[in-house]
Amino acid sequence: MTAAASTITTKGRVVALCGGVGGAKLAFGLARILGDRLTVVVNTGDDFEHLGLHISPDLDTVLYTLSGLANRELGWGRGDESWNFMSVLEDLGAETWFRLGDRDLALHVERTRQLRAGVPLTGIIAAFAKRFGIEAEILPMSDEKVSTTVVTPEGALPFQRYFVERRCAPVVREIRFDGADKAQPTAQVRAALGDPGLEAVVICPSNPFLSIDPILAVPGMRRLLQDAGAPVVAVSPIIGGKAVKGPTGKIMAELGLAATNMAIGDHYRGLVSGLVIDSGDAAERGAIDGPTHATATLMSTDDDRERLAREALGFALRLAAAKAAAT
Amino acid sequence: MTAAASTITTKGRVVALCGGVGGAKLAFGLARILGDRLTVVVNTGDDFEHLGLHISPDLDTVLYTLSGLANRELGWGRGDESWNFMSVLEDLGAETWFRLGDRDLALHVERTRQLRAGVPLTGIIAAFAKRFGIEAEILPMSDEKVSTTVVTPEGALPFQRYFVERRCAPVVREIRFDGADKAQPTAQVRAALGDPGLEAVVICPSNPFLSIDPILAVPGMRRLLQDAGAPVVAVSPIIGGKAVKGPTGKIMAELGLAATNMAIGDHYRGLVSGLVIDSGDAAERGAIDGPTHATATLMSTDDDRERLAREALGFALRLAAAKAAAT
Repeated sequence: MTAAASTITTKGRVVALCGGVGGAKLAFGLARILGDRLTVVVNTGDDFEHLGLHISPDLDTVLYTLSGLANRELGWGRGDESWNFMSVLEDLGAETWFRLGDRDLALHVERTRQLRAGVPLTGIIAAFAKRFGIEAEILPMSDEKVSTTVVTPEGALPFQRYFVERRCAPVVREIRFDGADKAQPTAQVRAALGDPGLEAVVICPSNPFLSIDPILAVPGMRRLLQDAGAPVVAVSPIIGGKAVKGPTGKIMAELGLAATNMAIGDHYRGLVSGLVIDSGDAAERGAIDGPTHATATLMSTDDDRERLAREALGFALRLAAAKAAAT
Repeated sequence: MTAAASTITTKGRVVALCGGVGGAKLAFGLARILGDRLTVVVNTGDDFEHLGLHISPDLDTVLYTLSGLANRELGWGRGDESWNFMSVLEDLGAETWFRLGDRDLALHVERTRQLRAGVPLTGIIAAFAKRFGIEAEILPMSDEKVSTTVVTPEGALPFQRYFVERRCAPVVREIRFDGADKAQPTAQVRAALGDPGLEAVVICPSNPFLSIDPILAVPGMRRLLQDAGAPVVAVSPIIGGKAVKGPTGKIMAELGLAATNMAIGDHYRGLVSGLVIDSGDAAERGAIDGPTHATATLMSTDDDRERLAREALGFALRLAAAKAAAT
């Protein structure tokens, strides 16, 4: 299993787990290949109430990315955004640390209205995705509230306070997923992972600690992945000892981990069948427990996204074939 | 008492009662003359919950008008508005019959947040007014919920459904102010009307039935006006047998009233000391019960607004002087 290009032979369903920016890019690539055969299970641990509105940063990033509306420079929000709401909030002396664009706001207001009316988040997002012309199924990891909380020397910070307001400056001592013990995977997540036609699960290169762990913290989620009968491959967010974007490297250091693919592999041990790492890190392969596939993992263009998606899927199919041959 | 220009000698407080557009114009003129000696008591019977947000159409029109931010063509909303939020709401298939501008939205979101946090509407509006650089005191008529409801052959319609969504098409059989019986004037409204330095009360040329009546429906409000010891003058919204803007004429016809200054005078009987009517309607003066003052009441420019404000104040002061001389 080297970096040779793979021919995709999937005819069945693929489930991707992802958070925001980096993960959404790979989800985009997978969606280009798979269309409505892709289900994306998205982290909602970042969700929070702000100005009385229910904000779902990762779900919205996935919606915007898959519909082609995303701001490619910022990595969050829409490309065609305006900020007039924000400027008046500032005039009023209201809270402005979390930037809400005028167009983006429509999702928050309508989501909040529907949630208050009793519509589950899963149904709301499905309707939004349909309206945005997205073929893939986009699912919140749970309809129950799970709140990622970062424990720092200054105390426990709600995720967005840590991530946006404090720009990840405080040292991370521990990451908690408050409410996770009372959450459960939705019927839709169960159905996707229980689909007899499921051919692969791809863990996108999102931050494992902040974006993927909350998904895995939902009771029953790990079991669903283990019972799925399809290979689970993770794409490492580490390239050359650093995270492409975001605080993964800093957080790993603070948690006493080296920012290496080996550490990522260790983190996902028992869960994944194989790890996709960057070609430049191929020398690390010996230190990584289990199968690896090395390929260019930096996604700058849409074609990069699709190519990496094909590589990850091909790797997963080869792992499945190898397993079938061995038994 | 003819249309001769009056010299304003007020040194004390003036209270204006008003609704939206037309009333806010006169409030603007009064504010130019009086600065922080003006208190505007504003109708909140139009307030409603929309998309989970608390909207206060008349209060916001007064805020925008007095701060110079109003859209002079539309008569509602801001002049410097954009509509990107609305366009995405439409993409989502959400309710779009009530237009919410991107900048305008900041007031609704922040007001709703503060109301949920337990801040009374009076305090919220005072802070907004200060932020907008408004010297005059702008007061909701009450901090309790009063809902203007229009009874039509189609049933009872919440005010905004009647006014905005149905564009005043249904025939008005009755106008109700739901919740008014449980409302009360705020401490701030009591203080303004009980101010020993109060020199005049001006009822602005808003729709008497839809904008002024809800204020008067708050239990104790009429008594406060009667006990104020200052003359109460109303500026008629009727010019030449028609309302300048809005559905006043149509509603009066549906309620079996002629669209005349006499009918306006009758409506305010027992409450006002005198009625300001348009110069062109001076021939009607004989039919109107009580003192009248005829002057140009159409307000096209800011100077028109200020001039009419001076006329109304001068009229009130002359009524007070005449009363003092008679006793």
